[in-house]
This record gives sequence, structure tokens and C-alpha cells, in this order.
Amino acid sequence: MKSTLDNTKKRIERLQQTIRSEKLDGAAFFNFGEQKDPNMRYYADLTLGFGCLVVPAEGSSFLIAPEMEIDKSIAAKGVKIIKLTAGKRLTLLLKKQLKGRKKIAINEDICTLKLINNLRKADFIVKEFSSGMTKKRIIKDEEEIRRIRAACKRGDEILTTIQQQIKQCSTEAELAALITYEIKKKGCELAFEPIVASGKNTAYVHHRSGNDPLQKGFLLLDFGVKYEGYCSDMTRMLYIGKPSKEEIAAYEHVLHIQQECIGMVKEGISGSMLDDHARKMLGKRFIHSLGHGVGVEIHEAPSIGHGAVEKLQKNMVITIEPGIYLPNKYGIRIEDTVVVGGKVLTKSTKELITFHNVY
Amino acid sequence: MKSTLDNTKKRIERLQQTIRSEKLDGAAFFNFGEQKDPNMRYYADLTLGFGCLVVPAEGSSFLIAPEMEIDKSIAAKGVKIIKLTAGKRLTLLLKKQLKGRKKIAINEDICTLKLINNLRKADFIVKEFSSGMTKKRIIKDEEEIRRIRAACKRGDEILTTIQQQIKQCSTEAELAALITYEIKKKGCELAFEPIVASGKNTAYVHHRSGNDPLQKGFLLLDFGVKYEGYCSDMTRMLYIGKPSKEEIAAYEHVLHIQQECIGMVKEGISGSMLDDHARKMLGKRFIHSLGHGVGVEIHEAPSIGHGAVEKLQKNMVITIEPGIYLPNKYGIRIEDTVVVGGKVLTKSTKELITFHNVY
Repeated sequence: MKSTLDNTKKRIERLQQTIRSEKLDGAAFFNFGEQKDPNMRYYADLTLGFGCLVVPAEGSSFLIAPEMEIDKSIAAKGVKIIKLTAGKRLTLLLKKQLKGRKKIAINEDICTLKLINNLRKADFIVKEFSSGMTKKRIIKDEEEIRRIRAACKRGDEILTTIQQQIKQCSTEAELAALITYEIKKKGCELAFEPIVASGKNTAYVHHRSGNDPLQKGFLLLDFGVKYEGYCSDMTRMLYIGKPSKEEIAAYEHVLHIQQECIGMVKEGISGSMLDDHARKMLGKRFIHSLGHGVGVEIHEAPSIGHGAVEKLQKNMVITIEPGIYLPNKYGIRIEDTVVVGGKVLTKSTKELITFHNVY
Repeated sequence: MKSTLDNTKKRIERLQQTIRSEKLDGAAFFNFGEQKDPNMRYYADLTLGFGCLVVPAEGSSFLIAPEMEIDKSIAAKGVKIIKLTAGKRLTLLLKKQLKGRKKIAINEDICTLKLINNLRKADFIVKEFSSGMTKKRIIKDEEEIRRIRAACKRGDEILTTIQQQIKQCSTEAELAALITYEIKKKGCELAFEPIVASGKNTAYVHHRSGNDPLQKGFLLLDFGVKYEGYCSDMTRMLYIGKPSKEEIAAYEHVLHIQQECIGMVKEGISGSMLDDHARKMLGKRFIHSLGHGVGVEIHEAPSIGHGAVEKLQKNMVITIEPGIYLPNKYGIRIEDTVVVGGKVLTKSTKELITFHNVY
């Protein structure tokens, strides 16, 4: 897509200005298996199993990667590719390509100590630049919001499909598998492993879905779609059976606060002010932050939690996800993805969806 | 399971001996989102979204994790848990818990530069110990082989299911989604993102399955199941339509070499000797290593490639996966998971499975 190429070109130009003003020779973004630098997506609109994207202070950026990592989707991006021969060390080829330019910005949140050791052995001077890189991504451009919106839309569609097929699932694992299937069937990736918790398991914030049967009570679904590299994030509560008055009241309470917080999402308010409001209303059984930024990473800047003083700006994208967790009883969390100064992108109903006579 | 607890206890005792003989105060294994230290599985039989496992030189090991990461599956493991309060720094709590003991072994393949910086700020002296840790895991015990066998068995079952349902899939992404669904439905995890490549896409070793329609020609399926933390790995070739004589001959050639190499897998042979044999037979269109060790990581020691001088020992678990890749034509890879001095664990047929009149 031409528009995407134009976007990455502009982003690279802005990065190069910073590189030069910091008197650096370039920036390098590494992907190693599960450790993937989100900046590779941001600056080249691709991701690699193994390799690195190099943005020199001046001139064109390029990839270094083994031949086996190059497929046609990468070849189609039009970025120059330097092939890494089997058995050769990436850091040494990088040194050769940069011809004596040694001071490079790296992402210390991704680069392992081993990689840093190898870079230093190859005479590189590494400059930690994670927060600088994160800041550059904090306000989303039109193309980024388009992709996050598309990810959210697919999430909404999948929640509808799930509701229609829920009777076929008998365990949490099966339901998580179904969500994953629907995400991948659309040619998308998981933004993170779906959280499916049934009954008392909803009281665990990051419950790992296992072979526990779906049971009567609350059913928490927290999942995200990654569409063309960009994430959505949404949590909805379903209920199997007939909720008690107390459960309905608890649900309505969390929902009310979630809607209040979403109403407060405006330019100029800080993440901390939002979080403090929710915490005041929910008390100490609210055991996580109110939200987080979303983009090429499922969790990125801005921070939406206690102590987050940074003021929100137009076209930041964040989640609002208050919750309460009552051990041995249940947990409730409701979450949307929201554009600051814009719209709520996750549009699934927030009425408590109940299933009677399922089991 | 008692047997598992006994196994991790023995492993920890062996690690503690090494820690003491290296004059260290302990070892710490960190999980941060996607960056998960496989040693946490090996020594505590669990995995965390965020937190660390600490094995002190003497006494009991313990976990440090936020309350929201603890679910009942983790509580059930019986390991002591120190809760990390929201907003507090993990490295500072670690310092407090270790009471002035400062010299800790860490895994430099997993620990990011940022984490290392924080450890150093908390006065820790870190000792890089990745290869030492990997060596300890290189020979599998009975319980580990049981799990890898169970993972392989599930992989075989899934391949059968896939063949029955293949007619319902019209794109690579749908087929990859179906493999993922079947893996998760069994309560297992992906050992890695399934590789589904159709037609000319098979020529890309690490093809990313997209919305390309399944087409006539070879269909490569490379996927792995993670069962209770342990991985399987298998590649099989299917064919849609009627293969040409040349294609059949190429397939038979790769299969013949794969079977020869499996026959050569014995105690005392090196990974390099195996790789050299395959390379001699396949020529320069064999563009990756012949195999790799498998365990809590999909790729771990021993190395089965050029220059890998280490001799194989009984109860190492490795893959044998020769392949050829002809750009703009097709690629062929056949892969099994094998116990050294034992059996081939992936048992799916290696006859070329053809589907006629599918599309």
C-alpha cells in the first residue's frame, strides 16, 4: 500500500532527525524469536523471526536477515535486504554494513544481555533509547488508527460468533481455542493469549484457561486481535445461568465506573487522574491499573495507572478496564479500546449477556 | 503430581550444587510477557506472565510475582510465593528477599539490558549462565520424555483431524487457524506459530501463512504442540492434485535422506556429522540446519548443524528435518522428533498424502 510506505518513510525521517541530533550513527531494531522489537513494525511495517532493521543517521534503512526468514510478504515491502549467511554472526555483518559507524540506538526492553555483549564485542557503543522510541509512537497517525479500528471491529465480530457457538464448547480451553481460531481465520494474529475464565476462575485477573469445564456463573472473555501489526483489546462479561441480585449489582457498579472513566477520557487529563477516580470508587479489590496504551504493542505508552502524570493528547489510543476480584466468588472486568479525542473503538454491547439452560 | 515435584526438587538440588561450586548466592529466572525463561518451567514446572523464580544457594526456592499473575494452577505447584505489590520494583523486592546475597546467575539469552541495569542498580552482580543452564537440560529424564511423547502424539492426532477437515479450509490462514484450534482444544499451547505453505509458498522456509488460497501443488505443514511445557515438532508434506514425476522424485529423495539421517542418530555421533551427510546429498538448496534439540524450548541444545561437534548422548531429544527449496517452484521438508538411543516420537505417515478434486 502506498499510504503505508509513505507513513513509514515519514516516521523514519523523524527518527533520523533524532538520531542526528543525539549525535548517533543509527538505530537498530532486533527480532529474535519471541523477542520482537515493535519498532520494526513501526518503521518498516513488517516483522521477522530473526534479523534486524537498521536505520542509519542518513540514507536508506535496510534489513539484515537469513534467507530462510525472507518470504514474499517481506520482499513486497520494498526495503533493502542484506542476507545473513548461515553460521555468520549478525552483529559482525552489521558492523561491516555500517562501515565504522559505531554509536547506535537500541531498545533495551528487547535487546538481551547476550546481544548487547555481542554488539560490544563488535565495537558498537549502544545507546538505550526505549523510552525515546516509545514516545515517538505515542500519538497515532490516521493509518494506525485505521488499523486499530479494524482490529477492534474484528474483535466485535468474533465476540458475536463466539456467542453463537458457545454451546459447542464445554471447557475454558475449548472456548479460548475457538477465539484463537476465529482470529487466525481472519488472517490476523493474537494480540495476546485470550483469557477465558469461568465461575470462580474469574477472580484471577490473568487466569490461564485450562481444561476446567465451563460452569454456571460469570464468564470473562478478554482477548485482542492484531490486524496488520496493530492491536485491539476488549473484555466482556457473560453469564451462564441466572445471576443473583448481588451479582447484577456488582456488574452494574463496575459498568457504571467504566462508563464514567470513558467519559473522562479527554485531552489534558492524566492517566493517574483516571486511575485514582476508578480506585476511589472500586476500593482495594481493584488490583491492577485502569488501563494502558495500545498500538503495535498490546501494552505501550501512555501509562493509565497510579502515578501516571503524563497528560493525554489527541489520538493517543488507550484501554479503560476497571475490575473487581473477590477470591472464591467471582471477578468482573469490562474493557474498551478508546481513541483520546475520538471514539470508543470496541463496540460490543456491555449489557450482561446471559445464557440460560446451556448446561 | 508427586513425580513432577520430585523431579523439580532433584533438578533444583543439582542446580544448587553448581551455584555453590561457582561461589554464587543464587540463580534468578525471569518471565516478562513474551520473554519467558524456559528454566522457570524446568525448575518449578510453571510459567508466569510476569515475575521471577529464585533458587538460592541453599534453602527453598520461591517465586516473586504480582498477585494478578497468581492463579490456582500456580498456587497448586506448592512453591512459596512472595507477592509483589503494584508499583514496587521486582529487583528491589528480590534484593530484600536475598538479604545482601548479591552474586546471582541469570540467563543472558532472556534478560534484557533494562532488567540487567535494574539488577545492577539494586547492587546485584550478575553472572551469565545461559549455556550452563542449557547443558543441565540437554539430557531428558523420564518425565520429560513422557511429556514430549505426549506432545508428539497430540501432533499426530491433529494431523489426522486436519486431513479430514482440509476441504473446509480455503486459505493458508484458515488451515493454520484450524491447527491452532485443535492444539488449544486439547488444552495445549503452540510450540511455535504453525507454518502452512501452499504451492510456490513452500519454497519459503519460514513462510507466514496469509490469506493466500490453498492451491494445487505441495502443501507444507510444520507445527508443534506444547504439552505441560514440553514441545513436539513435525513437518509433513501433503499434495493437492496430482504430483508430477519430478515432484515425486524430489519428495522421495528428501524422504530417503531423512530416513538415512534418522538411522544415523545414535549415541556418539555429532550433530555436525549428521548435518554434513544431509548437506552432501541435498546440495546448496538445503538452506537451514538439519535439526535442533527440543524440550521446554522448541530450539535448544544440542545443536544439529554445521560445526556442531558435541557428541549425541542417550535421551537427548532432537529433530531431523532435511529440506530443499526451489524458488518459484516448491519446497519440501520432512521432519520428525527423535529420542537419541530411543524412538521416533512423531509417528504420522511419511507417504506423500495427496488430495484429488479438492478445489
